[in-house]
Amino acid sequence: MDPRLHFITLATADLDACRAFYVNGLGWSPLIDVADEVIFFQTAPGLVLGFFAAGSFNSDLGLDGSATLSGVTLAHNVDSEDAVRSVVASLTAAGGTVTTPPEPGAFGGIFHAHVTDPNGVIWEIAHNPGWAVSDDGTVSFG
Amino acid sequence: MDPRLHFITLATADLDACRAFYVNGLGWSPLIDVADEVIFFQTAPGLVLGFFAAGSFNSDLGLDGSATLSGVTLAHNVDSEDAVRSVVASLTAAGGTVTTPPEPGAFGGIFHAHVTDPNGVIWEIAHNPGWAVSDDGTVSFG
Repeated sequence: MDPRLHFITLATADLDACRAFYVNGLGWSPLIDVADEVIFFQTAPGLVLGFFAAGSFNSDLGLDGSATLSGVTLAHNVDSEDAVRSVVASLTAAGGTVTTPPEPGAFGGIFHAHVTDPNGVIWEIAHNPGWAVSDDGTVSFG
Repeated sequence: MDPRLHFITLATADLDACRAFYVNGLGWSPLIDVADEVIFFQTAPGLVLGFFAAGSFNSDLGLDGSATLSGVTLAHNVDSEDAVRSVVASLTAAGGTVTTPPEPGAFGGIFHAHVTDPNGVIWEIAHNPGWAVSDDGTVSFG
């Protein structure tokens, strides 16, 4: 099995709040938007981020209904410290909650912030001068 | 803020079990592997999947230490029903647990299975004839 990750799906307690944040607040265009069920966005080449109403998420997976979102962060990498501040401002204006203000990280020369969406999804907004993506998508760390 | 997702980081209760599964079992090459701390893999163009020891995950985010992984699935899409079966066999051989055997899904003509890794990360292995990625990475649903 080669590493080939195409979809990330997150259980969402409030799909309407999710839509208000990503579609109305941030201006993202859904690939698919089914009321009370699921919203999919393309978030990178070949990559889909899905928000799935928690009840449907649990029943689809045969879970007992207790699953909530925990233990996952998503990172959005930008080219400068000012871009970190700008994206954090956009997220805040859309209704996000800043939990770590823009600041130097603990290692790697990173400058970052953490912002949670209305469902508690944790986004890290980061500028990492030692991290690079080549034209073919190969990731490297300096 | 444009959709630009570069890192997915998951809290992991047992990083050694994670390494045994992905590196030894599946043969993935880590970008970074720091004992008792974190393992990063490139899982798609420009995309990194990180497994972060749960204690470090919680302290890095200023959480109260109670975060465990829940409410997230990752999907690996392949080109045929036979490839679904083959990848499920690879995951099982590496120590994964099948929770949904390869079977037709509820909608969209999908054929899929669910397999959990040793830390409970849920992988969906899917063949979806109506889903496509163009050369530039644009995702479409038929």
